[in-house]
This record gives sequence, C-alpha cells and structure tokens, in this order.
Amino acid sequence: MAERTLKLTLAYDGTRFVGWQRQAQGDSIQGLLEESLSRFDGASVVVHGAGRTDAGVHALGQVASVAVHFDHDVTTLQRALNAQLPPDVRVLSIAEVGSDFHARFSARSKTYQYRIRNAAIADPFERAYVWHLQEPLDRAAMERAAEALIGTHDFMAFQSTGSQTNGTTRTITSSLWRDSGGLLVYEITGDGFLRHMVRAIVGTLIDVGRGWREPEAVAALLERRPRSEAGATAPAHGLYLLRVDYH
Amino acid sequence: MAERTLKLTLAYDGTRFVGWQRQAQGDSIQGLLEESLSRFDGASVVVHGAGRTDAGVHALGQVASVAVHFDHDVTTLQRALNAQLPPDVRVLSIAEVGSDFHARFSARSKTYQYRIRNAAIADPFERAYVWHLQEPLDRAAMERAAEALIGTHDFMAFQSTGSQTNGTTRTITSSLWRDSGGLLVYEITGDGFLRHMVRAIVGTLIDVGRGWREPEAVAALLERRPRSEAGATAPAHGLYLLRVDYH
Repeated sequence: MAERTLKLTLAYDGTRFVGWQRQAQGDSIQGLLEESLSRFDGASVVVHGAGRTDAGVHALGQVASVAVHFDHDVTTLQRALNAQLPPDVRVLSIAEVGSDFHARFSARSKTYQYRIRNAAIADPFERAYVWHLQEPLDRAAMERAAEALIGTHDFMAFQSTGSQTNGTTRTITSSLWRDSGGLLVYEITGDGFLRHMVRAIVGTLIDVGRGWREPEAVAALLERRPRSEAGATAPAHGLYLLRVDYH
Repeated sequence: MAERTLKLTLAYDGTRFVGWQRQAQGDSIQGLLEESLSRFDGASVVVHGAGRTDAGVHALGQVASVAVHFDHDVTTLQRALNAQLPPDVRVLSIAEVGSDFHARFSARSKTYQYRIRNAAIADPFERAYVWHLQEPLDRAAMERAAEALIGTHDFMAFQSTGSQTNGTTRTITSSLWRDSGGLLVYEITGDGFLRHMVRAIVGTLIDVGRGWREPEAVAALLERRPRSEAGATAPAHGLYLLRVDYH
C-alpha cells in the first residue's frame, strides 16, 4: 500500500495520563494511539500531536497526524480506534490529508481554555476539571491584564525554567475572560505556546484578580522579565487544549 | 451538652464509593460522615440518609440527619467537615432542626434524575456521569411511557429481586423527559422508591425508545407483573439523587 497521511481530532480526559507525550513510565495519549495504529499498520507508526499537553491537562480538540500504509476507510478506522482505546480518549474525526501535513508544524494557531469555579464550595464532580477559587476576584482588572497579552511579545517570564525552544517570542491573537455555564473561563489563541505558558499566564492573571498585583504588571512582565517575577503556575487540571487551526 | 439534631444537604460523586450505606469493605458516604462527626462528638454518632444510593450513583441534594452533642455553630461545622471530607463529597448546607426530624422518615418526596448522552461518540469526560446510547430513540414514545408511571401503582415489576420492603406500592407525582445542555434527562419524583426502581424504569423506558416494546407496555407492567418482564437495569453511573423535599 502507498503511504497515506491521516489527521485525527481527539478529545481526552487527561486526569490519569502522564501527558500527551510517550514516557518511559505510565500511560500517554500518544503511546496509546501509536500502539493501536501500529497494530493496524503491521509496523511501528509515529503519531505527532499539535500540542504536547502535560499530565492532567485535558483536550477537547487535540489534532494528531500520522503516516500509515493500511487501506481502511476513515469511518471504519475511527470506529475501530474508539473500540480499542480506553473511554477517556475519543477520536472525534479522522480525515485524509496531504503528505506534507504535520499536526504541529502546519498549525496556524492553537486555542487553550482555562476553567475556574469561583464559589464558596467546590463542586465534587469538578475536582479534576476546574480550578476552584473561593476568594472574590476583580474581573475588570483581570480583563485589562488579559488584553495586555495580545500582540507579539517575548514570553520568557511565562515559560517554565529549563525549557528549550526556538526563541521565546510568540504572537497572541486573542486573550479574554468569559462566563460559561457558571464557570469563569480564560481563552487564549496564539501561534505557539512555551512550556507551561498558559498556566503561568493564568496564575499571573489570578494574582491580578486577587489584587496581589496591578493589571499593568502583565505588560511589565513582557519586557523580558525572569520567570520568578510572574505568578505561580496554575494547576494542570483546569487547562484544556480547545482547538487547533490550520491554513 | 443537650442533644441537637442536624440536617445536612450533600453532593457527592458516587464513582469510587460502595454506595451511601456503610459496608464491611470499602468507602461509603455514610461511613465517612459518621467518622468525621464522631470525632467532633467524642462518641459514635449514626447518620441517617434520605436515599440509600447504590455504588456509582451520584447525589446533588442528598439529605442526612444526625443527633449530636457538641455545640459548634453550623457554619463552623460545615467548614470543618468540608476540610476533613475527601473532595468527592461536599456538605452544601447544615441546618439545626427539631428532634423529630429524620432524613428518611420525614421526607415527603424524593426526586431522581437519570442522564443520557444520545450521540454517536461518547464524551470522554462523561464516562462516569451519563449513560451513553448511540442508537436513535423515539422520544415521543418514551414520553408517553413515562407519563403512564404517574399515580399510585404497584411497582413490583421494577424492584430488584429479593428486596425486602414494606409493600411495593408507591406514588409518583412527576415522571418526564427533558433536554438539558445536550443531555437527555429523565426526572422522577415520588414518595418512595424500591431498590433499583429508577434504574429499572429507565431501562424499560429506553426499551420503548429503541422500539423494542410499545409505550403501553409500561402500564401493563404496573399490573403486578414479575421483575423479569420489565427492562434491564440501567447503569448506576447515570443516576443522581437530585433533591429531597420535606413537609
């Protein structure tokens, strides 16, 4: 069979996983997909993900690409994969794409969502899915701080220590807070994200909401400040890779 | 200290519990509450629940009563209990009530909710919280069948085998299907429920929705039919004790 490139769109509950990426120990989403797809292919396949979500981080629209040699149609393959995969990972769709498609390198932008329950008492059903914050938050200040992130900036202050990347400049096209079903949701779209960047941004925006720092502090952090000056990294379990857009 | 009676309203994710009721093995909600409250009381207390939810069944508004001797105010007690209890059980409120209040015997009615996701692909975040059904369902037939349950009937056909109870006649005041956030939700209110009754009713209503039996079959089952003639018991993880009403 000739080689075909497939684009998979996935949703997963990241709770029990070591993250997207295959590791020496523990279950990863990449590992599960490679195992299933290799069984179809008869040879080892490598699955590329658009975003390498960390342990505990969820996805509603992760995109993965893979080159395969089998000739099952995409509907049959989707059904078979969903039958083989554990219920906390679902293949939402599969499309056949050009051989030059790569889930990460072809991506134009990614959108992450961070979910917060701002209430006196936590919801027992949400403990692995939202960050629960009891204290009152200054929404107007958080909105002003979120807006300051839009544009092309050096996000050095918002990356985790020791991350190696090709530069720390990224372009953010949307950064806003909104209400969704009683939750406080932060949504950010950009051409790329440094390691732990969204969670460091959320930690900093929440510092602003708590009145621990001024909204203007965010603009100052974008002037190549060290990581130690930004807020703490928000917990992984509130973060969702919402969607990946392509040209 | 004089004896005081407290009414607790609780929410819990039933996933990892053996059920409401204390068992020889495994975690129960009753057991966790008794352990925490006994620590406050200095003596063993017994907590009574309005509904004895089974393993995997959830609660959004379970009610429990307990007689205690300590004198902490209810706000302090609520905060302390929520600090001690695991995050999958939350005390939503505590009220001081008359000494004749009993969570189960004083209840006028209970309302259960059963949640179904009727879609081609299951949502990975809902695997412990809804029943996923792929096939098309005849909603009009299910609504007609649900209505037939309203009134005072002998629910023998809908109890689990070997359950001992004071009779099998119960009065249902509301029984309906509705849409809620993309979910198909069945809601039933009654003065009491036999063991597994709601799940047996849902199993039977889904048989009607699938076209496996006529809506009229429900009325026939209420004519003291054996359990074997009703539908299969729907899975525990779609069921929620929604609320308990008192006089």
